[in-house]
Amino acid sequence: MTDQNQTIPEGWVHYISMSPPCLNNNTADVDRLTAQLKQQLDVRFIDMDRSLMILLPEVLRKSNFNVRCVIFGYDHYYYLIDVQPSSDCLPVYGLAIDLGTTRVVLRLLDLSDQTTITETTIDNPQGKIAPDVLARIHYTDQTGGLAHLQQLIIDAINQQIQQMCLAHCIDSKQIMCMSIAGNTCMTHLFLGFPPQSIIREPYIPVINRQMIFPARDLGIEIHPQARLFVFPNIGSYFGGDLISGILALNMHQQDEISIMVDVGTNAEVVLGNKDWMMACAGAAGPALESGVSQIGMTAGPGAIERIKQDNHSITWQTIDNKKPIGICGSGFIDLAAVLFQSGMLDIRGKFVPDQCRDKLLNINEIMHFLLVPEKISGTDENLTISQVDIDSLIRSKAAMYTILTTITKSVGISLTDVSAFYVAGTFGAYIDPSSAITIGMIPDLPLERYQSVGNTSLEGASRVLLSRRDIESVSDIQKHITYMELNVNQEFMNRFSAAKFIPHTDTTLFPSVKV
Amino acid sequence: MTDQNQTIPEGWVHYISMSPPCLNNNTADVDRLTAQLKQQLDVRFIDMDRSLMILLPEVLRKSNFNVRCVIFGYDHYYYLIDVQPSSDCLPVYGLAIDLGTTRVVLRLLDLSDQTTITETTIDNPQGKIAPDVLARIHYTDQTGGLAHLQQLIIDAINQQIQQMCLAHCIDSKQIMCMSIAGNTCMTHLFLGFPPQSIIREPYIPVINRQMIFPARDLGIEIHPQARLFVFPNIGSYFGGDLISGILALNMHQQDEISIMVDVGTNAEVVLGNKDWMMACAGAAGPALESGVSQIGMTAGPGAIERIKQDNHSITWQTIDNKKPIGICGSGFIDLAAVLFQSGMLDIRGKFVPDQCRDKLLNINEIMHFLLVPEKISGTDENLTISQVDIDSLIRSKAAMYTILTTITKSVGISLTDVSAFYVAGTFGAYIDPSSAITIGMIPDLPLERYQSVGNTSLEGASRVLLSRRDIESVSDIQKHITYMELNVNQEFMNRFSAAKFIPHTDTTLFPSVKV
Repeated sequence: MTDQNQTIPEGWVHYISMSPPCLNNNTADVDRLTAQLKQQLDVRFIDMDRSLMILLPEVLRKSNFNVRCVIFGYDHYYYLIDVQPSSDCLPVYGLAIDLGTTRVVLRLLDLSDQTTITETTIDNPQGKIAPDVLARIHYTDQTGGLAHLQQLIIDAINQQIQQMCLAHCIDSKQIMCMSIAGNTCMTHLFLGFPPQSIIREPYIPVINRQMIFPARDLGIEIHPQARLFVFPNIGSYFGGDLISGILALNMHQQDEISIMVDVGTNAEVVLGNKDWMMACAGAAGPALESGVSQIGMTAGPGAIERIKQDNHSITWQTIDNKKPIGICGSGFIDLAAVLFQSGMLDIRGKFVPDQCRDKLLNINEIMHFLLVPEKISGTDENLTISQVDIDSLIRSKAAMYTILTTITKSVGISLTDVSAFYVAGTFGAYIDPSSAITIGMIPDLPLERYQSVGNTSLEGASRVLLSRRDIESVSDIQKHITYMELNVNQEFMNRFSAAKFIPHTDTTLFPSVKV
Repeated sequence: MTDQNQTIPEGWVHYISMSPPCLNNNTADVDRLTAQLKQQLDVRFIDMDRSLMILLPEVLRKSNFNVRCVIFGYDHYYYLIDVQPSSDCLPVYGLAIDLGTTRVVLRLLDLSDQTTITETTIDNPQGKIAPDVLARIHYTDQTGGLAHLQQLIIDAINQQIQQMCLAHCIDSKQIMCMSIAGNTCMTHLFLGFPPQSIIREPYIPVINRQMIFPARDLGIEIHPQARLFVFPNIGSYFGGDLISGILALNMHQQDEISIMVDVGTNAEVVLGNKDWMMACAGAAGPALESGVSQIGMTAGPGAIERIKQDNHSITWQTIDNKKPIGICGSGFIDLAAVLFQSGMLDIRGKFVPDQCRDKLLNINEIMHFLLVPEKISGTDENLTISQVDIDSLIRSKAAMYTILTTITKSVGISLTDVSAFYVAGTFGAYIDPSSAITIGMIPDLPLERYQSVGNTSLEGASRVLLSRRDIESVSDIQKHITYMELNVNQEFMNRFSAAKFIPHTDTTLFPSVKV
């Protein structure tokens, strides 16, 4: 890992004063400036585009060799992006992007005072073509498919840049560096890399290591010399968004062991501290996403996000207090916890008719639990959860717990050794850890160890725009991680079977859960 | 200097075999190839364009991970330019350019078998706009002047590439690397760098250090990922053509001290060996170029290039045996030597009427020596050399000898310590060292120490296209050279005055010259 005691000048905006040339000191302009930068900033090599070299003689002489330089890069690869007279220059901005499959978040930062100017969230426009990773990769099998998907996201980013700049009276040419963190597939589509091998055995990305190159090469309309930093991947199923998350949480710098979980279609898990890091990914989430249960939906107005037991009745709360129209992942976990604790679900996750009584409806020979009667539902229909939906949730929670057990056991520690449990993403923002513990989805740790950490991908992407030390850490983090292939072997299946009970066959693992 | 014992794989074309990926070895495509290249070629980092990464998955799978790679670069900056299946690939070419003020020479090389395919010489098209360095720099003061000069040379190079490729049935896209060596001004004009500061005190180039960047950035139409290497300068008056020459002559690797002299408008001199190197440049050449003496011309058909004394008559020889129309530098030096040895010039370089007799004509009160009577001249006019022309030659030869004395004295050696005396360029190709010694232009060394070395600039430019070791040496050579500013002080003037005699006031310096 990067030595944290090493003092390197932080940030990307630097003021440089040089002695003007004379007969006894006739170093060339480019060489004079880079020598001074190298010394002042403690870097080994600084490159710049020819187009910037062309401008240099005039800027240096106009400023009497006192200039503000904007650099960006890492390792051997530092680039000089912009040089202006110190006394006369506009602010410098950076753009951080969290490139999600569903949503894209852009954050505009002022690099001089390190403040956020604005942030905006848009749907990933590729979603209209193909909703998920698999469908998008299949779409690239068509002629022109990849180029089309790439153009959609580039255009959308350019449009957002324009709008943000317009709203804040900023010249987009003052955006001088940019970072992007996404999962492996989204990163490939953004870069125009053929993604087919990602989903076909043996699951090979085009590139894992981080990249830096001119943003103009992708047609992104910011400063002509602006550089774009792309977070590295660990592999096909562990992308730059997670590396960025680890950076944001400083997991790679801590003495204590922490764990980060990001749940989407897959659950991605990383465990470790400053000395080691272990990662894995596995299918664990389907039941928690929209489209699996009949009334499942992503978190949005009218989604039941919270369910509690109040004496003998079940109360729910919707997003924006709208009439309920469905249930999102956090609500579903709450519901299962409440049903279990009130005895309406047994330890196998089956409805208990004696306890559910008139809430239990038989629809086409499948038992359904009536959550919201049609009279008060936003859809004018009953909102029900079926036994099939519950079974699916049980499999998801069992998979999640098994993954967590497997990754900790692989390094010889217990889940209780984990000092902080970070739950990332929108899922993390809504889930109630006590409900998730009750159903045995996550380990029975003191609640204060659970932290909902929000959009860590965007946070990490912002960090590299503000800190040289942080960008230098990224490749260290990547190299530092051991990726564990989750082999679904007999041992895994045994653990999975044991975890399919609520909270678990071994109830001593969940002392806080009253069965 | 680069350690010559270090074994690095030479050349730029390499065949690479990788294990195909599998579940236990799921490194990404780009990372797999670069890891193998780094190991096999012993380089620290290899970069490649995104557009090449896009092609990689298909090429790797089509070739079952057996590929031919073309790389180019130095130090930390190696670039992967092309990847093709090993079993199915076209030859790889490189283009070396000597970018002269007057003439441009292009050499096309086959990088696999290291042979020269063809070579072509053209006039520098900028010459039509402005003949010399000064005039060209003044032309860039006009709006659009720099862009115009740059476009002229780029267009001319593209045109020559097309013609050479057509004549040899070569696809220009197979030219994958390129090198260019020129004087500081020509390099600036080629790169589009404002050259004004080169000729104004304190004489500052935009850049001295070497560069490598995509040839497409300048609009050069070869392989889309081809890289262009630009030789570094030492300063405004010591350019990349000379660094290239030092490389070609291996001066930087020899134990013995050698000297290289290139005479054009300026005389550029470099002296040294593997341990040290000293360079300087000074005005010494005007009399040797066309346009100074009335009948002076550059070496071409009809130019008197060689003059001998045969018994009592003077005989001359023209280029291509055409009727004489003028005299070039080498002929002029021969003439002065012959006139001096036959007593027609005295030690001050003045015509001796008693000896010249009817060859001496008084034209407008200035004495002229009749070299070719109108009857046999190609111009139907007398070809004569005036006392003014001879005076000018004497100043040039005195300047040259003074520069040589000054540079050797500056490092505490004598001119006789020099084991090899390289005379570069077209001047070197024609000059007769014994004549130049006779008039005291160059030191009185055994003739075998003089070597006419031809176009060393082109030779060095070719070397970097064939050898990694050579390209790595270039920046070492540049850093290794101490540039000595020729201060025209009293000591210099004293030496100059002493050298204005034929061969010198101190005749013991020229024991072989019979006065």
